[in-house]
Parts: sequence; C-alpha cells; structure tokens
Amino acid sequence: MKYIIIGAVAGGASTAARIRRLDETAEIIMIEKGEYVSYANCGLPYYIGDVIKDRNKLFIQDAASFKRRFNIDVKVRTEAIEIHPSEKKVTLLDLYTQKTYTESYDKLVLSTGAVPIKPPIPGIHSANVFTIRDVHDTDLVKAVIQNQKVKHATVVGGGFIGIEMMENLTHLGIKTRVIERAPQLLAFLDEDMALLAKSEIEANGVVVDVNNGLSEIRDNADGSKTIKLENGDEFQTDMVILSIGVLPNNFLAKAAGLEIGQKGGVLVDEYMQTSNSDIYAVGDVIEFHHPICNASYPIYLAGPANKQGRICANNIVNGNTKKFNGSVSTTIVKVFGKTIAATGSNSRLLKNHNIKHITSITHSSSNAGYYPGSTPMVIKIAFDPESGVLLGAQIIGEEGVDKRVDVFSTYVQNKQTIDDLMEFEQAYAPPFSSAKDPVNMAGFVANNIMDKVMQIYNPEDAIEISKKEFLIDVRTPEEFEAGTIPNARNIELDELRNHLTEIPKDKTIYVFCEVGLRGYLASRILVQHGFEVRNLSGGYRFWKNTYG
Amino acid sequence: MKYIIIGAVAGGASTAARIRRLDETAEIIMIEKGEYVSYANCGLPYYIGDVIKDRNKLFIQDAASFKRRFNIDVKVRTEAIEIHPSEKKVTLLDLYTQKTYTESYDKLVLSTGAVPIKPPIPGIHSANVFTIRDVHDTDLVKAVIQNQKVKHATVVGGGFIGIEMMENLTHLGIKTRVIERAPQLLAFLDEDMALLAKSEIEANGVVVDVNNGLSEIRDNADGSKTIKLENGDEFQTDMVILSIGVLPNNFLAKAAGLEIGQKGGVLVDEYMQTSNSDIYAVGDVIEFHHPICNASYPIYLAGPANKQGRICANNIVNGNTKKFNGSVSTTIVKVFGKTIAATGSNSRLLKNHNIKHITSITHSSSNAGYYPGSTPMVIKIAFDPESGVLLGAQIIGEEGVDKRVDVFSTYVQNKQTIDDLMEFEQAYAPPFSSAKDPVNMAGFVANNIMDKVMQIYNPEDAIEISKKEFLIDVRTPEEFEAGTIPNARNIELDELRNHLTEIPKDKTIYVFCEVGLRGYLASRILVQHGFEVRNLSGGYRFWKNTYG
Ligand SMILES: Cc1cc2nc3c(=O)[nH]c(=O)nc-3n(C[C@H](O)[C@H](O)[C@H](O)COP(=O)(O)OP(=O)(O)OC[C@H]3O[C@@H](n4cnc5c(N)ncnc54)[C@H](O)[C@@H]3O)c2cc1C
Ligand SMILES: Cc1cc2nc3c(=O)[nH]c(=O)nc-3n(C[C@H](O)[C@H](O)[C@H](O)COP(=O)(O)OP(=O)(O)OC[C@H]3O[C@@H](n4cnc5c(N)ncnc54)[C@H](O)[C@@H]3O)c2cc1C
Ligand SMILES: CC(C)(COP(=O)(O)OP(=O)(O)OC[C@H]1O[C@@H](n2cnc3c(N)ncnc32)[C@H](O)[C@@H]1OP(=O)(O)O)[C@@H](O)C(=O)NCCC(=O)NCCS
Ligand SMILES: CC(C)(COP(=O)(O)OP(=O)(O)OC[C@H]1O[C@@H](n2cnc3c(N)ncnc32)[C@H](O)[C@@H]1OP(=O)(O)O)[C@@H](O)C(=O)NCCC(=O)NCCS
Repeated sequence: MKYIIIGAVAGGASTAARIRRLDETAEIIMIEKGEYVSYANCGLPYYIGDVIKDRNKLFIQDAASFKRRFNIDVKVRTEAIEIHPSEKKVTLLDLYTQKTYTESYDKLVLSTGAVPIKPPIPGIHSANVFTIRDVHDTDLVKAVIQNQKVKHATVVGGGFIGIEMMENLTHLGIKTRVIERAPQLLAFLDEDMALLAKSEIEANGVVVDVNNGLSEIRDNADGSKTIKLENGDEFQTDMVILSIGVLPNNFLAKAAGLEIGQKGGVLVDEYMQTSNSDIYAVGDVIEFHHPICNASYPIYLAGPANKQGRICANNIVNGNTKKFNGSVSTTIVKVFGKTIAATGSNSRLLKNHNIKHITSITHSSSNAGYYPGSTPMVIKIAFDPESGVLLGAQIIGEEGVDKRVDVFSTYVQNKQTIDDLMEFEQAYAPPFSSAKDPVNMAGFVANNIMDKVMQIYNPEDAIEISKKEFLIDVRTPEEFEAGTIPNARNIELDELRNHLTEIPKDKTIYVFCEVGLRGYLASRILVQHGFEVRNLSGGYRFWKNTYG
Repeated sequence: MKYIIIGAVAGGASTAARIRRLDETAEIIMIEKGEYVSYANCGLPYYIGDVIKDRNKLFIQDAASFKRRFNIDVKVRTEAIEIHPSEKKVTLLDLYTQKTYTESYDKLVLSTGAVPIKPPIPGIHSANVFTIRDVHDTDLVKAVIQNQKVKHATVVGGGFIGIEMMENLTHLGIKTRVIERAPQLLAFLDEDMALLAKSEIEANGVVVDVNNGLSEIRDNADGSKTIKLENGDEFQTDMVILSIGVLPNNFLAKAAGLEIGQKGGVLVDEYMQTSNSDIYAVGDVIEFHHPICNASYPIYLAGPANKQGRICANNIVNGNTKKFNGSVSTTIVKVFGKTIAATGSNSRLLKNHNIKHITSITHSSSNAGYYPGSTPMVIKIAFDPESGVLLGAQIIGEEGVDKRVDVFSTYVQNKQTIDDLMEFEQAYAPPFSSAKDPVNMAGFVANNIMDKVMQIYNPEDAIEISKKEFLIDVRTPEEFEAGTIPNARNIELDELRNHLTEIPKDKTIYVFCEVGLRGYLASRILVQHGFEVRNLSGGYRFWKNTYG
C-alpha cells in the first residue's frame, strides 16, 4: 500500500508514525510545504517570549529522523497543489526547484491545518505586521524583536493565541496593547468570565480594547506605525501581531471536490473519512459534529489533531474500526499569574443553539485553606435543568485550574451529570485539595439549584434587581461598610433568625453574601420561614469584579 | 424531629450542617467526647511539622459558631457510652462532671471515626510513644518536640499518615526512621511502585526498614528509648509515632447490636442506614461494598466521610433517596519533592480477589517537554484484559500527579475503559500538558496491549527472563554501555531493520529500551518480520529503579 500524507506536523506526523507501526511494509510519503516538520506549534509564542530559550527544543522529529526511525519519506519544501481523486494522484510542487511532479496513492491523508485570517484592512501587508502560524513566522518576529527596538506591540485579536502572544511580549518588556472587535476577549468564555480575564491582563499593564476593531495601519517616517481603531482612536506601535482567527486550509480539498462544511472545514465521518473514501482528513482542516451543540465546528486544537491522527491511521490500515467521538473544546491559557480554562459549551454558545441550561458560579480554594499556598478560583458551570447533564465549565484561578478543568472535561465528554460531580472522588491531602473538592462544591451547589433547595439570580441582573426588589446583604456589618450592591440593606446571617419580622412576606427576597455560601444558608432559613428567596450566584465578589 | 449525631468532626459535622439546611425546625444535638469539633484531622501532621504555623487554622467551626450559625447544640467533652435502640435513647457521660444522662432521638447518626491500633508490644504504653488521631495527640507531640530535645524519631507503620509524619519530622530536622512490618511501604501501592517511594524517602536521609516489625520499646536512663525490631536489630530513639493502622470505632454500635462487617465496620446500605432503621452511620466507622473488589471495606478518607454526611442528611430528612455508590480509595501523599497517588485497586488487591487484570507502566512528562519545568512521572495502570475496564492507577512524580490521579479516579469510578483514556480531552497548552496527555499515553499503550499490537513482559520477571531468553537492548550504544540488564545484547532501534538476520526466529525475542517507546517500535518492526516479541513494560528505567 502507498500512503501520502499532506502536512507533516501535529495531525499528519501522528498519522504517518502510527501507520508505520501498523504496517511495516507500506510506502509512506509525507509532504510538507514548509521547511520544518513535526514541530511544537504551541510552543512558538513561548519561544518568542524567551520562556523557551533553545530553538531546537521546538522540533520533535525531522525529515532524517523520520526516515531513520520510521522509514518514512518526508518531502519538505514541497507543496501539494492538486489532488486528482479519480486517478488517485497528487500534483506536487518542489519549492526549491519550482518543478511539479505527481505521486500516486492508495490512500491520502489531508492534514493541511488552518490559515490565519488577514482581513483587507489598509496597511495589513506592511512591514512588521505578522501572523504566528509556523516556525518561519516565528523566526521573523523574533528577529524583528532582537534587531529593531520594539518598544510597543499591538496584538489584534484576543483569542488564546493572541493572549499568549500578549503575555510573552509583555514578558520581554514590550508595552503591549490588545485589540478585540468582539465585546469580549477569549471567545471560549462567557462575558462575565472574560471580564475577569481582562482585569487580570490590565493589572499587568496591558491596554485592552474590546468592542473595537482595527481599521488601519499606517507607516510613520520613524519606522513606527500608527494604528487606527474603528472608534477613531489612534496610537503608535512598532509591531503588529494579527491573531484574528484562522480558517480551515481547505484549498486542496475544495478543488478536489470533497464535501466542505458550513464553517469551511472538510467534512469527515467518525472514521475521519472524507466524502471520497480514499481520502481521510484530520486536524484543523476538518469540521466535526460538536458533541453538545447540534452543529459541526472546526477544532483548532493539538490534542484532538494528534488523537485523530492515530484513529485515522488505524482506519486506513485496518479498515474503518476506530471512531472519533468529537471534541468538547477543552481549552486552557496561562495569563500571567492566572490560568484560564474551559471545557464544553459556554452560555453564549448554548443560547445561540437554543439549548436550555442553568449556570452556577462558585468560588473555591485550590487546596485546603489551612495549608499554605492555597489560592482562590472561580468556577462557572452550565448544566441541563432537567437531566442535570453538565454542558460546560469555565475556570479562572491560579493553582489547580488545569486539574479541575480536566476533571470537568471527562464529565462533559461522557455526558455525565451534576450527581457525578458531587460523587467525584478527588485525591485529597491538604497540599492538593479539600475534603470537598471545588468540583464537588460546584456539584453540590448545582444540585441544590436543581432540587430547588436554593433559587438563584445571576450577577448580570443584580443591578436591575437592586432597583426594585428587597435586597439583603447577609455579610457582616464590616463587610457591608466596605462596599455593597446599591440599595442593599444589611442583616448579618448569624443574626437573621432574630430579624425575620423585618422582612416582607409579600415580596421575593434577594439575598447575597461574599461568595454565595452564607447567602445560601440565609435563603434556607428564610425559605423555611415561608419567604420566597433568591441567592446571588457567585456572590458579591463575582458581581463586584464583573458588573460592579 | 430530634436528631442526635455522635462524633462532631468530618462525617458528623457535615451531616449536622446539612440536616439544618434541610430542616430549620429540627432539634439537632451533636455529641463529641473530645474538646474540639470540626477540625482538620488531615492537617495535624503538617501542624506538627510547622508547615501549618497557626494552630487556629486547624479549626473550621467551634461549638459556639455551630450554635450561632446552625442553631445546633454541640456537647463537647461528652461521651456517648450506650445506645438503647429499642427506646431510641443514648446514654451520655459528661466528661467534666463525670455525670451520665440520657437523650432521646428520632434518628441517630454515628460518626465515631476510627481508633488507632496499639498492639500489645512491650513498652508501647511508655512515655513519648504517640498515635496521631486528634488535636490532643497533636498537642502532646508538639509539646514534646518543643520542650525536649528530640533528635531522633521512629515512625512505626508506613501507611500514608506514617509517611506524612516522617516527612514532617524530617522537615523539623529530626532524624527519622520508618519501620514497616509488611514487605513494602504504602499498602495502596504495588510492590514495585512502593520501591520507588522507598528510594525517594531514603534519598532524603530517612532510614527505612521493611519486612521488619517493632518488637519492643525500652526506656533508657538518659530519657531516650531503645527500639528492638523483630529481626533483632536495636537502635536508639527519642520519640515513637505509632501509625500501624486504625480500626472502625465500633464499640457503641456493637453493644447496640448493630450489624458489623467482617472488617469491623458498621454495615450500612447505600443510604447510609445501619441494620437499625433509626440509626445511620458515616465515615471511618462504617464499611462499604467496594466498587471493584467483591467485598466490603472500611474507607478511612475524609472526602468520602464528608460526602456520606451530606447523603445521610438527605436521607434522614427526606427519606432514603440519595445513594452512596462507594469509594474507589483515591489516595494521595506528598513525600518530599514527590507526589504519590493511587485510585482504584492495585495489582496485589486484584490478585487477592482473583480479579483478572493486566498492568502497564508508562513514563510521561508533567507538561510539554519543550516548555520549562516539566518533570517526569511514572504511571502504572491495571485493567480488565477483556472489557478494558480500568481497575486502578498508581502514579509517582513531581508536578501534575494530583491532576492525573483525579482524572483516572473519574474513569475508575465510572467503570470506564482504556478507550476512554485514549479519548480523554485534556486541557493542553505547553505549561500544563502535552498534545498527548500522560493519561492518553497510558491509554494508547494499554490499547496496544489489548489489541495485541504489543505484547509485554513485566519488570519483576526481567531477571529470570534474562537468564534464559534472547534479550535485546534497543537503546543507543552509549546508553547500553552506561548500564543494561544482564545478558542483554545491543541492537539500536534505528539500526534494527539492518540486523534482522542476526535475530533467531525460533525463540521469543525480549526487547527493552529506556522507557518502553523504542522497545515498542522495535517490537512492531520485528513482529511484522515474523518474530515473536515481548517489550519490557516501563523499560529499563523502571526496572533499574525497582528490581535492578
Ligand atoms: C502559535 C500557536 C499556538 C498554539 N497553541 C496551542 C495550544 O496551546 N494548545 C492546543 O491545543 N493547540 C494549540 N495550537 C493549535 C495546534 O497547533 C493545531 O491545532 C494543530 O497543530 C493542528 O494540527 P494540523 O496537523 O491540523 O495542522 P498543523 O500542525 O498546522 O500542520 C499543517 C501543516 O500542513 C502544511 N501544509 C498545508 N498545506 C499544504 C500543502 N498544500 N502542501 C504541503 N503542506 C501543506 C503546513 O505547512 C503545516 O506545516 C496552536 C497553534 C499555533 C499556531
Ligand atoms: C493524622 C491524620 C491525617 C489524615 N489525613 C488525611 C488525608 O490527607 N486525606 C484524607 O482523605 N483523610 C485523611 N485522614 C482521615 C480522615 O481524617 C478521616 O477519614 C475522617 O476524619 C473520618 O471522619 P469521621 O467523621 O468518620 O471521623 P473523625 O473525623 O475522626 O471524627 C470522629 C469523632 O468522633 C468522636 N467520638 C468517637 N466516639 C465517640 C463517642 N462515643 N462519643 C462522643 N464522641 C465520639 C471522636 O472524638 C472524633 O472526634 C487523616 C486522619 C488523620 C488522623
Ligand atoms: C511526535 C509525532 C511525530 C508523533 O509521533 P508518535 O510516534 O505518534 O508519538 P509519540 O512519540 O508521542 O509516541 C506515542 C506512541 O508511543 C507509544 N508509547 C509511548 N510510551 C510508551 C511506552 N512506555 N511503552 C510502549 N509504547 C509507548 C504509544 O502507545 C504511541 O504509540 P501508538 O500510537 O502506536 O499507540 C507527532 O505527534 C508530531 O509531529 N508532534 C509534534 C507536532 C505537534 O503535535 N504539534 C502540536 C502540539 S505542540
Ligand atoms: C465544615 C463542616 C462543619 C461542614 O460544613 P458544611 O456547611 O457542610 O460545608 P461547607 O462549609 O464546606 O459548605 C458546603 C455547603 O455550602 C454550599 N455552598 C458552597 N459554596 C456555595 C456557593 N458559592 N453558593 C451557594 N452555596 C454554596 C454547598 O452547596 C454546601 O451545602 P449543601 O451541602 O447543603 O449542598 C464539616 O465539613 C467539618 O467539620 N469539616 C472539618 C472536618 C473535616 O472534614 N476533617 C477532615 C478533613 S481535614
């Protein structure tokens, strides 16, 4: 058998290596238009930021080692320019010699990745305007930083790669400004969680514009640039990093007549097979049925690309036997001292897809509060109000965020419920967790909501509610004095049982405390005395840090 | 309704607080024979070790705050000395006044915890021989350390509490020796993993005796003690910490005629109800059906105790509705720079219960190898050879061990399979994981074993095999020179395809490399050339550090 794989990084290289392990005698050719194969795309921002100091560390394998170890022919600087599905051939262009030639295949794998979006904005093609997609881009940016005096950089686009670039540039001492056209950064988060992310970024001296697109890049005489925003603001910068987003690199696939999805990704079935049974596709170039939303989406993540590669190789060699079950978009990004992560679908996405859900916000410690080094985290989960199935989780904190998002990821992937969160048996010793893990706590609170043991109101509604409803701050007088929600009156939790007569029975009572726990206890006392009560999800702390 | 809860720490206090939230009008009395309630048992070793500096941090609530917040009567220094199930009464002894009195109940909850084992060994009741169970014990040990010149301590028992004590004493500069009668430390591990734990402990200057019990403690004239071991060895020490194990504190339950299990725990059903329908029990005092082994076991862990308390409260107030589904014994302990953790059943336990299983050992990095700060971890999993159900996982490493054991815990709890491990969608960015998470990698390797893509041999058999079989070290000549398994010959992986004729076809070929990956690649090449091949699970590194 003869296999050709187009694209030799995450998805492609994984497919090729696994094919070899399954079939020692196959002829395997990997085609890569770039100079490098099998490199760590995800490390590129950190290499720019000097966090990864040794450029060699970015390379896992090269063409020679692929030959030696896997007996795979890797053709670098070779671009696949056309697929001829009926003849089972590909036309290749040798970028050194500029000569074309064809190779036949029995099975073809597309792992051509994604292409960065470059909107037709004046000045976008001028010098020192970069996208970060591969080693070449990275070398260019690194050289500019090293050789020119870059004092100020502008990152256009607040997705996770933009944010990583912002962090790394800041780390190098470059003043950085982030511009995002959408109303918020980090689209994988809900607006409220994104506000927390924004605060963290601003606290590190970075200027952030949201709701404001790039409208023009002008070159100045001194080598600097003037950036003009959609709202008319202008400022000077030395370098521009575009991370506005990517699109599936579907050029070859489209021309070959393969079915393409609504979002531009190559459509594959669960075996990674395209509409042509001899062509498979994996990685950023595909789109796939989303396990939560009833739609298909591209997945621009390395984990799924690697896993799809292995599955694809199995199916190519052994016939279609192994299924890919979709990605729940588990995402994580380090932002200075904080870690920001999410899995499943956020509220915005769920709303767009008309999926009923309740959200619940909790605050927890990374490990036992009595043991040194514990740090706070905020967790927001979304779940189905009837079945309790967990639909998504978002977390911001310092330590232990990656752990909790991974645990939530298993529950989202397996369509498990709030009950499962409650039962989660964490490894508990004081340095690592608490007797009730943050995941359990999110489960307990959601369970109370589902069982109507507690009714909640959401932080985004707090101000409106405060204008017309009976609002009680159940924190201590000291906490109340230091700041509260407008119009709230103060009845401390531990005194509540003695002040019941002061509370009207004909109105819904809205309570809140610092994080939600005392508000919950207050609501239990009141409800059992015949009041109708709502507790503020996430408490004063979350409200204050977002809409307050 | 009137509820009495005996024992006011992890299980008891959780039950009481939840009962109040569900029933504002109930009368709730908590009985505690000690001086303190609701404290962090799990923090006690760290308070002794001065890692937790403030003693107040150990206390979450006290009797007064329970009254204020929860309107719960807490009777400290009050011992329940008899239950009269037919009359629904308990006899209580006020330890201050030494007077007894009775209280009636509608429902009774037992959360009396466990009692430390103190075997009848000569000298065991002499001064400066302690167990660590509660605040009182802790205060005693702390005082001795502060006031007497404790230069050397002996920890008897190498379970997780013993190991935590050993670490904390060492942290204080006290020379420490650990004595364990069993052939290994940390019974939640397999022997091989326990050997790695032992090495780590010894590397920190601690003397460890395994396979060697305590036989006598003698007081010396200078205030020190002589410890005599079962093998006749003697040495001097200043203080002895006994952590030989605990037994369910079933005294009251037994006398009340409640059904007791084989291991001495109070038998409860999934609703936490004992054989008497008005009495419930939670925490260390119960034993419960183990989800993997067909037997019931006590669970001496705080997480399950807290969760059972919440479940128990629900069932008491609302009728039996919420089930406890058992504990998979997820355990973790920090040992100097290492973290050691396990979930589910280890191989020893599985063997004892005649449960068929395969084990597989992998080495992984805590996060992307190209990103600074990644550290190695060893993972050993056990799974059902037919269904692929994950039965247990053990991990030793530095960073990120707690995360992986938590992920494995969800899979073990939910009776999921090797396929699920492969599909696990980790949150991947370079500081947190790799494109293939260690959990995925364990899954891939196990999947290859199940699918017979790779056959393995186990490290404990390597020496026997090396004596009679054809053994190939596929590492580089440099690695081979630096040390190998006896009788191994060296054919480097990348040269293997050129040396096939030197390998006998009539024998099973045993290969190995450093961690297992190159051995696997070698085995794939050889198998497809018609050889019968086995690859060493865990590679040379694991073998060398355990049986080598
Ligand atoms: C800066 C950056 C940071 C990232 N960080 C993370 C992260 O932290 N976590 C995460 O999960 N994901 C991250 N990603 C995304 C991740 O790298 C991708 O999802 C993954 O690499 C996709 O794999 P792929 O094989 O589909 O595409 P790629 O790995 O991009 O490989 C595609 C290859 O195909 C080649 N190619 C394309 N067309 C042709 C052609 N016609 N002929 C020959 N060759 C062709 C390209 O040159 C390219 O080398 C990051 C991406 C970038 C760019
Ligand atoms: C030093 C130490 C470290 C630990 N570390 C960890 C860890 O890191 N992780 C983990 O998961 N678990 C750990 N544990 C175990 C954990 O603390 C227990 O599993 C948990 O506390 C059990 O809860 P319980 O309510 O059953 O018993 P306990 O919390 O022990 O409470 C029982 C209470 O009942 C009282 N009592 C008993 N009999 C009577 C009576 N007749 N009348 C009145 N009162 C009575 C006792 O005085 C005691 O206060 C540790 C335990 C110890 C001792
Ligand atoms: C590295 C690369 C070439 C793939 O190579 P690979 O051989 O599939 O992957 P790894 O080196 O991680 O090894 C995994 C294999 O080793 C096996 N393995 C790992 N540890 C093992 C052990 N201890 N014993 C036996 N086998 C082991 C696994 O089972 C797996 O084999 P399988 O897929 O046949 O089951 C490809 O993933 C790549 O190019 N990666 C870099 C690009 C990238 O991913 N970028 C995005 C992220 S930054
Ligand atoms: C603290 C202790 C008294 C229990 O109190 P508790 O009130 O049940 O537990 P917590 O204070 O952790 O609060 C948990 C409750 O608050 C709720 N809660 C937590 N955060 C919330 C939020 N943001 N919004 C609303 N409710 C919240 C939870 O739902 C849960 O209530 P529920 O059980 O009714 O669902 C008891 O666990 C104890 O004594 N612990 C110390 C002893 C111990 O566990 N030792 C061993 C480990 S070291």
